Amino acid sequence: MKAITQKDLNDPTSLVLEDVADPVPGEGEILVKVHTAGVNRGDLLQARGHYPPPPGASEIIGMECSGTVVANDTGEGPAVGSEVGCLLAGGGYAELVAVPVGQTAPLPEGLSLAETGSIIEVACTAWSNLGMAAGLRPGTAEGKKVLVHGGSGGVGSFAVQMLHALGCEVAVTAGSAEKLEYCRELGASKLINYREQDFAEELKGWADVILDIMGAKYLKGNIRALAPDGQLVIIGMQGGTKAEINLAPLLPKRLSIHGTTLRARPVEGKAEIVADAVENVWPLIADGSITHRVHETFPLAEAAQAHAALDSGEVTGKLALRVTD
Amino acid sequence: MKAITQKDLNDPTSLVLEDVADPVPGEGEILVKVHTAGVNRGDLLQARGHYPPPPGASEIIGMECSGTVVANDTGEGPAVGSEVGCLLAGGGYAELVAVPVGQTAPLPEGLSLAETGSIIEVACTAWSNLGMAAGLRPGTAEGKKVLVHGGSGGVGSFAVQMLHALGCEVAVTAGSAEKLEYCRELGASKLINYREQDFAEELKGWADVILDIMGAKYLKGNIRALAPDGQLVIIGMQGGTKAEINLAPLLPKRLSIHGTTLRARPVEGKAEIVADAVENVWPLIADGSITHRVHETFPLAEAAQAHAALDSGEVTGKLALRVTD
Repeated sequence: MKAITQKDLNDPTSLVLEDVADPVPGEGEILVKVHTAGVNRGDLLQARGHYPPPPGASEIIGMECSGTVVANDTGEGPAVGSEVGCLLAGGGYAELVAVPVGQTAPLPEGLSLAETGSIIEVACTAWSNLGMAAGLRPGTAEGKKVLVHGGSGGVGSFAVQMLHALGCEVAVTAGSAEKLEYCRELGASKLINYREQDFAEELKGWADVILDIMGAKYLKGNIRALAPDGQLVIIGMQGGTKAEINLAPLLPKRLSIHGTTLRARPVEGKAEIVADAVENVWPLIADGSITHRVHETFPLAEAAQAHAALDSGEVTGKLALRVTD
Repeated sequence: MKAITQKDLNDPTSLVLEDVADPVPGEGEILVKVHTAGVNRGDLLQARGHYPPPPGASEIIGMECSGTVVANDTGEGPAVGSEVGCLLAGGGYAELVAVPVGQTAPLPEGLSLAETGSIIEVACTAWSNLGMAAGLRPGTAEGKKVLVHGGSGGVGSFAVQMLHALGCEVAVTAGSAEKLEYCRELGASKLINYREQDFAEELKGWADVILDIMGAKYLKGNIRALAPDGQLVIIGMQGGTKAEINLAPLLPKRLSIHGTTLRARPVEGKAEIVADAVENVWPLIADGSITHRVHETFPLAEAAQAHAALDSGEVTGKLALRVTD
């Protein structure tokens, strides 16, 4: 098959399309012919050597895709010929991928095969952190105040719509008036331009839950922005990993800080997330509460250009790679 | 009534018994004649000016007691004449205390009025953090690995027995062979002398849950000791409040850090904890799984001596003050 490989491990832009061996499905895995692969920030980190795939996973970049099942000997899950979305530990930037059967999902009603290729990673990231870890679910989320950092990004724009649909009051940070306007359209009601405003000062004690992608840089501000019983969920460390922390406010306010990544979870954990997301989030896509914005789709051979585009910070919504027709 | 007051706010040892005005029960509160008041580390902090009572609470020290109901106009809860244990925001070092009705509990089966005076604070602290926050409950706790720092102390010795009864594997830290032997008798199977061993090195990646009283000093070691999906619950900061934190291990291991105090919780939250503890923990006291060790009981007038004893670090179990007969 054809797949993207990195010629020079010291050069994250050296991504080229070449012939590699077809993947062989392992125990409990099915084989999927990839139609569209989503491009995620983790992919950029992997190309820079900072985010290796978990042991046993494909070395090929790519954490999500859509495609058609071409082999399934597991005795369960989608039949050969079915169209599916796949949450991957790796291997999406390729014509074929082997995926644990529990990490496949039906296409959300109303979404094309192309669109589905870049939705499952954000959907599972948003749902596992906000719905499952922070407990913002149908029936419990109503009226909760949630701050989403990077509200116009891939995970952010999905999370804002999902939270709005669940009845939350949503605040966002973003770096321009245009991005904030986009967040407002998605359902955010508090808009904070981080270049001009101090979010912690604006929101001190307001947030029941914060979805953070900045790590160290925002840690102090996030603690200040939390309300009593508030939960900080950190899913990215774009602002570094090492910080000073003052534990003193955590105890009387009963705050919690939770770090997660989706990729490193065991297969069973991912299957549980996919199933819970299909049950709770797919209906919000089907009824139009969550729309999926694909900012741009590149041919697979132009993976390096797609990475450069995501790295520019000028993207609202998701980027994707068209692998096969 | 007679109560302990602090003559000099700059001298934590200046605790004297004197006449003060009787408390007047507010909305939803009942009046209890105190029999025995428990002595807790928070009391020492309050005498040092570091742990003020929440707004509206009694300025008198004392976060728990047992006693007899002498007035109840709330229309619910225990009748006048009933013996109860009370979880207090303050006011325990006195002959009378006003307490929200939801913060009273029946005496655990098999415990005397005197013993009950120093059990409800540790029981509610252990249960709210381990049972409610960390989810170590009947049916889910079995086989979980839990590290209890200060395993021979008031909360620690209660927590070790409770966890052992719930089927957990329990590790403890303590500062002497005698204290560790005591922890072993309570049900701990991994014994770490913190003066001789590095608990993080001994337990790296072992603990599903850690109950911590040290704060900053142990933060790095606690993160290292946690297993994937591990939860650190910080209930004390005897090792300071400011630390360097490296967030990097939190994400791939999906760790969470949760700070709590019991005292600052709203009245409804405390009522919920007391009710859940009575349901889940009282049976473990009744069947002998948890024994309550009162290290020493002082007359109320000797509150300063009781504080000095707790401060010495030489106490295994709880200290109490006998208020009335």
